[in-house]
Amino acid sequence: MKTGTAQFNVTRIADGERSNTEISIARESPVTIILNDKELVTLLCTPIELKYLVVGYLSSEGFFKSKGEIKSILADDKNGIVRIQTTEDTPVAQVNLYKRMITSGCGRGVSFYSTADMDIQKVDSQMQVSSKNIIDLVKSFQTVSRTYIETHGVHSSALCNEERIIAFSEDIGRHNAVDKIFGRCLMENIPIDDLMVITSGRISSEIVFKVAKRRIPILVSISAPTDLGVKIAEKLGITLISSVRGKRMTVNTNDWRVK
Amino acid sequence: MKTGTAQFNVTRIADGERSNTEISIARESPVTIILNDKELVTLLCTPIELKYLVVGYLSSEGFFKSKGEIKSILADDKNGIVRIQTTEDTPVAQVNLYKRMITSGCGRGVSFYSTADMDIQKVDSQMQVSSKNIIDLVKSFQTVSRTYIETHGVHSSALCNEERIIAFSEDIGRHNAVDKIFGRCLMENIPIDDLMVITSGRISSEIVFKVAKRRIPILVSISAPTDLGVKIAEKLGITLISSVRGKRMTVNTNDWRVK
Repeated sequence: MKTGTAQFNVTRIADGERSNTEISIARESPVTIILNDKELVTLLCTPIELKYLVVGYLSSEGFFKSKGEIKSILADDKNGIVRIQTTEDTPVAQVNLYKRMITSGCGRGVSFYSTADMDIQKVDSQMQVSSKNIIDLVKSFQTVSRTYIETHGVHSSALCNEERIIAFSEDIGRHNAVDKIFGRCLMENIPIDDLMVITSGRISSEIVFKVAKRRIPILVSISAPTDLGVKIAEKLGITLISSVRGKRMTVNTNDWRVK
Repeated sequence: MKTGTAQFNVTRIADGERSNTEISIARESPVTIILNDKELVTLLCTPIELKYLVVGYLSSEGFFKSKGEIKSILADDKNGIVRIQTTEDTPVAQVNLYKRMITSGCGRGVSFYSTADMDIQKVDSQMQVSSKNIIDLVKSFQTVSRTYIETHGVHSSALCNEERIIAFSEDIGRHNAVDKIFGRCLMENIPIDDLMVITSGRISSEIVFKVAKRRIPILVSISAPTDLGVKIAEKLGITLISSVRGKRMTVNTNDWRVK
């Protein structure tokens, strides 16, 4: 069984003094997705929970929505290859993986860069959470981030209800960590209604889109957002909470969900 | 003139008390590269120094090596489009942008995931630097990171000689920040022999490849590396220094370059 870390010898220098020691470093591997017998893309990731990563990534990108659409999935951990067969062979061109709408008419200043992101509906959940619960959840989130504590080289993400963590994943990529939690829920039939996402990473547009596609009402980050992330969260009715540190936080959008 | 930040109203919560305030947030925009009249890719970035970003990115990806190969470059800041014409129209398939070698025989445990990365030569520069100089350079690097200090939402990268910063850039993406410094040097004919790179971001394989392609002997990060980043730096003769904090640092590879 592969783990997320590896041991390495290093030279430490402190106040000009050298010493040799062994430390844990986060692992990184390329993982190639072969979808319906065609090579789709190679992701660089922490080589654990590969099935969750691939399922989360492909559902983020619009290739399927439910577990029922997955005919089979086979992860070759050794060679970093995940083969997945789906019931409908969605053409890549239709999903528009890398395509951008080059238009100027984005009414409220939000640039959608993928046609797949144009039809996301506003999140209308009435879920609310207290600032105290957010502080407590972020504290336990940071305690369970074992690979981060060991290596300082990964990001983590969690799905939580008001009181506890439902799913948790780590990855060297902040996008991958978010995809893994959604991939896990899809594979294990965990309902995600009225849950919130906590992430260690910065909130850019892509992270907000991943969360919005799952109709998650509250997105919490320990780090800062980008302006596009904020604008999209505002437009899609998501409560974005950033820079949670100790007993402080910044509520960027839709603050009525924070009691 | 566009800047890297925008002002937003937020709700701050501290110890349960709410207040309204205005803060700076890092800007994020899609930028589409049109290479020789064909749409190539859309990057999400901080919309400043777009020409440097595009030139750095394309040279990282193997589309050209020198300024002489660029016939023209036109940045449309308003719509986030950069049009670039080159003397040789390298086919994308040849560059193998997203292609991975799916093989198992990577002798020393290094997975190359792009054929473009297979032919990088070992860096043989005899450059050395003292640990004191690294500490001083990182200190000034952090002082000039104005957008980071303002927003906590960007990464920064610099090219330095032993004593001072030669080129400096910031971007919401850690890869982009590195591409921008190399793009600047290429466009402005700044020689990069025997220089080192400092970055705020984590050192994954892609960052090491970008640096190795420019034959940079020393790569310094404030953050942690991945195991693949370390292995590639070792194999390609690069001195990798990570987790520089105060007067402490970790030298991961080729420590003979640190005096």
